[in-house]
Amino acid sequence: MHANENFTRYMEIGIDSFVAASIDRKTGQATKPARQLRELLEAITLADEVGLDVFGIGEHHRLEFLDSAPAVILAAAAARTRHIRLTSAVTVLSAADPVRVFQEFATVDLISNGRAEIVVGRGSFIEAYPLFGLDLKDYDSLFAEKLDLLLQIREQTHVHWSGKHRASLNGDGVYPRPVQNPLPIWLGVGGTPASFARAGALGLPLMVAIIGGEHRRFRPLIDLYREAGLRAGHSLEKLKVGIHSLGYVADDFTTAAPDFFPGYAKSFTEIGKERGWPPVTRAHFDALLTPTGALLVGDSETVVEKILQVNEALGGISRLTFQMSVAALPHEKMLRAIELHLGDLVVGFAKSFPDVHRELHRVNVLGNVVAVELSIQGTFRGPMETPAGVIQPTGAKVDIPCADFFYMRNGKIERFDCYPAASIMLKQMGVLPDFASAVNRH
Amino acid sequence: MHANENFTRYMEIGIDSFVAASIDRKTGQATKPARQLRELLEAITLADEVGLDVFGIGEHHRLEFLDSAPAVILAAAAARTRHIRLTSAVTVLSAADPVRVFQEFATVDLISNGRAEIVVGRGSFIEAYPLFGLDLKDYDSLFAEKLDLLLQIREQTHVHWSGKHRASLNGDGVYPRPVQNPLPIWLGVGGTPASFARAGALGLPLMVAIIGGEHRRFRPLIDLYREAGLRAGHSLEKLKVGIHSLGYVADDFTTAAPDFFPGYAKSFTEIGKERGWPPVTRAHFDALLTPTGALLVGDSETVVEKILQVNEALGGISRLTFQMSVAALPHEKMLRAIELHLGDLVVGFAKSFPDVHRELHRVNVLGNVVAVELSIQGTFRGPMETPAGVIQPTGAKVDIPCADFFYMRNGKIERFDCYPAASIMLKQMGVLPDFASAVNRH
Repeated sequence: MHANENFTRYMEIGIDSFVAASIDRKTGQATKPARQLRELLEAITLADEVGLDVFGIGEHHRLEFLDSAPAVILAAAAARTRHIRLTSAVTVLSAADPVRVFQEFATVDLISNGRAEIVVGRGSFIEAYPLFGLDLKDYDSLFAEKLDLLLQIREQTHVHWSGKHRASLNGDGVYPRPVQNPLPIWLGVGGTPASFARAGALGLPLMVAIIGGEHRRFRPLIDLYREAGLRAGHSLEKLKVGIHSLGYVADDFTTAAPDFFPGYAKSFTEIGKERGWPPVTRAHFDALLTPTGALLVGDSETVVEKILQVNEALGGISRLTFQMSVAALPHEKMLRAIELHLGDLVVGFAKSFPDVHRELHRVNVLGNVVAVELSIQGTFRGPMETPAGVIQPTGAKVDIPCADFFYMRNGKIERFDCYPAASIMLKQMGVLPDFASAVNRH
Repeated sequence: MHANENFTRYMEIGIDSFVAASIDRKTGQATKPARQLRELLEAITLADEVGLDVFGIGEHHRLEFLDSAPAVILAAAAARTRHIRLTSAVTVLSAADPVRVFQEFATVDLISNGRAEIVVGRGSFIEAYPLFGLDLKDYDSLFAEKLDLLLQIREQTHVHWSGKHRASLNGDGVYPRPVQNPLPIWLGVGGTPASFARAGALGLPLMVAIIGGEHRRFRPLIDLYREAGLRAGHSLEKLKVGIHSLGYVADDFTTAAPDFFPGYAKSFTEIGKERGWPPVTRAHFDALLTPTGALLVGDSETVVEKILQVNEALGGISRLTFQMSVAALPHEKMLRAIELHLGDLVVGFAKSFPDVHRELHRVNVLGNVVAVELSIQGTFRGPMETPAGVIQPTGAKVDIPCADFFYMRNGKIERFDCYPAASIMLKQMGVLPDFASAVNRH
């Protein structure tokens, strides 16, 4: 059973993999790369069967990972699956040609019949820069320019474009065109405020990697994203937030942590050598397992509870992915985690709110979150408890470009978030929320 | 039944597809691209099941084709197949980054557990040049330089390289590494003599596109290739020749031609508009159907007989692929051609010489071709009829860098080809063939 059956379907659950390689430290070679790709495809197939929403493949250009060509791996996954969405996590766009990226993912989209997505980012590692002849001093301009081009190619087949880091396009056509129009493009971010603001301004869904510390410290950045988005005139429906987490669900908490720790410690200690971090200790790991810590590791109940808290702390999230590759789990444990635990989680969610996935733009009571998405034409259908009393559903159509979130606990509002940009807009429109009058009116 | 059961297994039979798109000429859009990719994957799966040796995917960057990302499509095929080799046909290397190309095909190689190949070429169409910001005046230097880099990356993980058209590599690693070492890289050529010579000098297997005229006019070019290869010290085993043909096998000849003609005429008339060719006529088509014409279209017997002639005319070929996409055949006819006809063809070949595939470097009597590959350590195992009488097999080991081909008909030598370079080398080594002494000696 799940900690909270009212958890909503509108949060998609998925897995991200970096396709970690087994390395023979003597020879410096990957010891069984073909087998690891085969096991990865088994895991994706199983994730599809148990109903997970999305599977992501990272992009790295180093010995430790087998994912330098994510679209190639995703195409293989597309040929073996039926429902699951397939995404990069992330495509290192700064080092890529946006034309090729679009062509590759459009092809995956055709093969999967409309299930491809791209998460673009600047990459966490920097080995792609020397490999593709790029200068780290162009870190930001490379990304900004290439993202601009990618979005233009998504928008239209024949593009006129010129920039500093890539040859001009003079109306040349980019083929094939994908099934989905627009092909979903997310912006993957770490902790750089400007990245959050950029994603908002462009109206792109946001994928936030939270791999350490506490989730809630990202709230101001996510607010910045939503504010920038609303200010730029994008609807909240478009301004989705997803979280890429390190996580693993096992039969019980006392199994999960020891399963996860050794690989996790090894991976982060290795990365730490390059980045000047101290070696990972068990105490450090344990701190991340506490209710507010970043790791989603434990039994189903613990993890679901934690996801609900993340959802609250971050003002509502649309997608959450578990990255387990860091732990280098044995294949059987990976499959068990997918089949028994993540699968259950998703099934539980779907039972409670089967249709809400496509109804995000209405006034809805979603378990413990009441989301009033006034930005889209919606209908006020559910009773809403406010500090001033219950607002009865009116069936009224609403069409206002802003959004409010009410966080409930035991049927009462615990917190109320009104996004600044929205408030300003509402004010301009003369429709500031007035709970008392609403309560009295009905 | 087949025209010649003695046809040898050492000729691999395959299909190349350009993944032609159905275009709505009013909207200028592909009408069912996802369905066409799905049908393509069905065709590849069937080709695998019936035992075809290889399936190739082209690369084009235009409305009419869906194959701008061949490695992505091949990965999907890899996930659905077990035995068939998977190749590009061709990768437009001039417009690509060799690092990405290697990464993508290494990934396909891992997914397919060692079945990936690359055919690199300069491309028949030129739309990739403006799309990727390249200048046609660099047509040759782009290719030469990128091929050099690709071969170096294949040779070693950490490459030191610098050139004019791509950023330098300073020992950066290129990952993942493929299952096959070396990953097969063929050179795809049209009719440019320098390309044949280059492939020979590099010791790369050669894939020749013969889509018009007569096969035999390519003999001097193929001789040039072999000569250049032998001169550069490569063994004949490495100097394989494959032919990419337009072809289609149906129940009978009177069905095959009408099935093939309309799509063929339309495709070549369209291409002709860009290239200044006259529209295709039925008379032109019929000329290509004659025994020496380039089209391998007809019933099994006709096509097998033609393949045998091609094999003879070109001094022995190792691979032959049928390209049917030009004819835009209905899916069912495509599947029938694969299942009933191409499948039968391959099964027939395999029965006759099941092991010769790996024995190319020995003295062998292969049906109507006697191939003496003196370039590799081999054993003289079969009796050989020469103009001076029969040479009995001696079991002797031979180890000479040259090769002779004897073409037999009804048990008699009809033609004898001794490659010039080989002759020169033999002469230098004092082992000029002397049939009379050989006959007398035993």
